[in-house]
Amino acid sequence: MINRLCIIGVGLIGGSLARALRGAQACAHITGCGRSEENLQRACELGVIDDYSTDIAEAVKGADMIVLSVPLRAMPAIFRIIDVHIDAQAIITDVGSAKSTVVQAARDNLHNNIARFVPGHPIAGTEQSGVEASFAELFNERRVILTPLPENKTEAVERVKKMWEAAGALVQLMPVDHHDEVLAATSHLPHILAFGLVDTLSKMSDRDEIFQYAAGGFRDFSRIASSDPLMWRDICIENSAAIIQIMDNFLQDLEALKQAIATADLDTVEAIFRRAKEARDRYTEQLAPSSK
Amino acid sequence: MINRLCIIGVGLIGGSLARALRGAQACAHITGCGRSEENLQRACELGVIDDYSTDIAEAVKGADMIVLSVPLRAMPAIFRIIDVHIDAQAIITDVGSAKSTVVQAARDNLHNNIARFVPGHPIAGTEQSGVEASFAELFNERRVILTPLPENKTEAVERVKKMWEAAGALVQLMPVDHHDEVLAATSHLPHILAFGLVDTLSKMSDRDEIFQYAAGGFRDFSRIASSDPLMWRDICIENSAAIIQIMDNFLQDLEALKQAIATADLDTVEAIFRRAKEARDRYTEQLAPSSK
Repeated sequence: MINRLCIIGVGLIGGSLARALRGAQACAHITGCGRSEENLQRACELGVIDDYSTDIAEAVKGADMIVLSVPLRAMPAIFRIIDVHIDAQAIITDVGSAKSTVVQAARDNLHNNIARFVPGHPIAGTEQSGVEASFAELFNERRVILTPLPENKTEAVERVKKMWEAAGALVQLMPVDHHDEVLAATSHLPHILAFGLVDTLSKMSDRDEIFQYAAGGFRDFSRIASSDPLMWRDICIENSAAIIQIMDNFLQDLEALKQAIATADLDTVEAIFRRAKEARDRYTEQLAPSSK
Repeated sequence: MINRLCIIGVGLIGGSLARALRGAQACAHITGCGRSEENLQRACELGVIDDYSTDIAEAVKGADMIVLSVPLRAMPAIFRIIDVHIDAQAIITDVGSAKSTVVQAARDNLHNNIARFVPGHPIAGTEQSGVEASFAELFNERRVILTPLPENKTEAVERVKKMWEAAGALVQLMPVDHHDEVLAATSHLPHILAFGLVDTLSKMSDRDEIFQYAAGGFRDFSRIASSDPLMWRDICIENSAAIIQIMDNFLQDLEALKQAIATADLDTVEAIFRRAKEARDRYTEQLAPSSK
């Protein structure tokens, strides 16, 4: 049970976590914090948070759990302020999609409080942004990866784990580097390809006509290109090492596939498509029928 | 009104067209044709077709409308047989996803009957295959592109147009080359990227774990990688000229995006993502709310 939860950044993820914990009665009081007073007022009206402050030092006062749910590049400055205003019992966690740079930012700014920071990442989201898009079920049966630091006490990790489980999530632990590699492959690269494809098409001279003839496959494929450009810019920059690695693999594979198409190499093209379909079909078998 | 419709290839597309035309009472009799007797029997049991033959010469006898709904590479041999068994009043059309090579195959094999062939392509489908997956509503409000030949009489084009409109589709005419360019961009490239991404991931050493952490974005993005590998192999080979062109554009853009990420060029990455989101959001505004 959390006594006072402070959510810094009350958007899709922060707002959904607040809603989920309130629904589960896992939290006595929720304070919101952010730069936009208008957004925080809206979050109050929606019942997502109990009160708010645009001042971080003020917002974290008395909190026993602090969740950073802000763009990756906003985290260092927030850690710096938290470091000098945090309560003795408080635990800090975050929801950043890349973990190496967040951990580095925490080490650079949290000083004596580094042991209280348990890095986290819920593998959930939609292409929508903002508190209006938040909903209590977002983390239901979804995975949350925690990448604990050597300095973390077991109890600190347990408290963050219990919070996410109360929100309905399945929590797993993983080393920081491994998290960043796995997410580069399964999330960051697909977003880059979707943004990239739509951008390539939007530069074509007959682009209006092109989009007019796009069908269901394109609609599903490109959905994530409607995601927040700033958030995804930050993710790409903050996880660039792992992303460049997987992009290199993909570019090499795509070049080989292009050569196979150009030379009418039926066997190679078929082998690639067949391997992909088998992997994709295996993957969907693991999903709930409703989410295939 | 079609008197005798002959559908060669009773799968997702051919089966759905039969169901739609029957539902609209636009067709008195439907004969199915294909290589698998088991599949044709199943189509009869499902009420999709009235009767069938595995012999093309037999199946097209007496038909006033013949629809080729087979893989692209199967078309030349079928045109050759149709050419000598077609009825005097019959019109031929197809549903191939690439049109230049189909038109060439028709010119090579239909001889004196080329004027009766009106090339077509319904922009509809799912990642499923086979007559079991067919449904009457597949073409509802979907676009069908016809790419008429100079030899076609207006009446022949009209008859094919009316057939698709009876099935619920919106029919538009377009030159062959332009069709192939537009489809390479909006359909063929997205499929290649989805197949390619899943294949790249499936070759990683920790692939089982990788897929385990894939979330909703990946699920939507990769759905089309569950499509029929043989059908898509054929599409890539048959539309290779237009596909190689758009792949080159995309590879160049993706390489530039990679460089921007590698050099932490925030402005360039943001500009690409923002342009893509704007184009994607404009595109979804044109869609019905239910299909966004």
